[in-house]
Amino acid sequence: MAESSKPILYSYFRSSCSWRVRIALALKNIDYEIVAINLIKDGGQQFSKEFQALNPMKQVPALKIDGITLSQSLAIIEYLEETRPTPRLLPQDPKKRAQVRMISDLLASGIQPLQNLSVLNQVGKENQLTWAQRVIAPGFNALEQILQSTAGKYCMGDEVSMADLCLVPQVANAERYKVDLSPYPTISRINKSLLALEAFQVSHPSRQPDTPPELRA
Amino acid sequence: MAESSKPILYSYFRSSCSWRVRIALALKNIDYEIVAINLIKDGGQQFSKEFQALNPMKQVPALKIDGITLSQSLAIIEYLEETRPTPRLLPQDPKKRAQVRMISDLLASGIQPLQNLSVLNQVGKENQLTWAQRVIAPGFNALEQILQSTAGKYCMGDEVSMADLCLVPQVANAERYKVDLSPYPTISRINKSLLALEAFQVSHPSRQPDTPPELRA
Repeated sequence: MAESSKPILYSYFRSSCSWRVRIALALKNIDYEIVAINLIKDGGQQFSKEFQALNPMKQVPALKIDGITLSQSLAIIEYLEETRPTPRLLPQDPKKRAQVRMISDLLASGIQPLQNLSVLNQVGKENQLTWAQRVIAPGFNALEQILQSTAGKYCMGDEVSMADLCLVPQVANAERYKVDLSPYPTISRINKSLLALEAFQVSHPSRQPDTPPELRA
Repeated sequence: MAESSKPILYSYFRSSCSWRVRIALALKNIDYEIVAINLIKDGGQQFSKEFQALNPMKQVPALKIDGITLSQSLAIIEYLEETRPTPRLLPQDPKKRAQVRMISDLLASGIQPLQNLSVLNQVGKENQLTWAQRVIAPGFNALEQILQSTAGKYCMGDEVSMADLCLVPQVANAERYKVDLSPYPTISRINKSLLALEAFQVSHPSRQPDTPPELRA
């Protein structure tokens, strides 16, 4: 059976975890196709039989690459890093690598899951904003403090790392849920610097094939 | 300033994330000290000023090692893997490594955060059991399916990996929240095999310095 040579990313324009992977693919200059999975339409296309066969977690992103299908954004990014190492998204020094992973996990395990679509659906429409704010703010408090000892221009020194790929989509979520960002000057500064980079722009939710016209940049 | 030679693990006997790291330390035969952080007593010792300076996320585990303090269990385990590679907790093959990380993240981002102490406190005592079951069951459904193509004796073939370090503590949580495990024969089988290993036994919540007498093995 011939493998398609181009990786296929199953993505939703607004999914912050999909955005992380789109940034990695853009930074590493990997050509790929997008298959849009609309998390709202048809009761959620992630629940289709076809998609469940690709990712039983019924979540985006999933990436078909090198003959396997991977899910979980950080596992995907680590795989890209190991198989397409340039430019690197993890520093060479083990301690700095550990700190990049710590920040990434703080965002990807410590904040994002607590305010994702399925949880917000469970807490009820009237509570969503308060709930999201209540989980994002303590995470950002912690992150702002950690960044005091790791950040340069970006989360870890002056080179873009996996941590930055997690930061920008989470700040976008925070803005969407009207979190007051004024207590987080370092997070805000880094976010702004990153959004100026092309890889963060082409991967932006406002510029995806499945972005609705009214949300297009 | 002299560094203490032994790593210090800030741990709570019942914390599933602390248990992951305790297993890694045991498997890699790393001698360490435990400082117990009681998540319940005194309104939660993780909220003390002293502990917040170590981990601004106010969560266990945190590990002081090699002159740095790390938090986030998977970041800690990856650091141990890079600096103390024997025995390995990630396979050599990049695709298998990716699958181990995918399973680890499914458990560590896709399930555990949704049923941790701070979330359960927010949903209210009367809803805790239902909430925990509702987030663990779909994750285990997905994992059971993924394991069909990855598992041997353990989550990835016949060698213990990081995925197994995440599995066993999550199954313990599932049991605690009375999740029916009969739909997950593969998860149950692997869990049982792992619990027979010494590293999983010495690190068990029932055998920690801070385990209350009535819960001791």
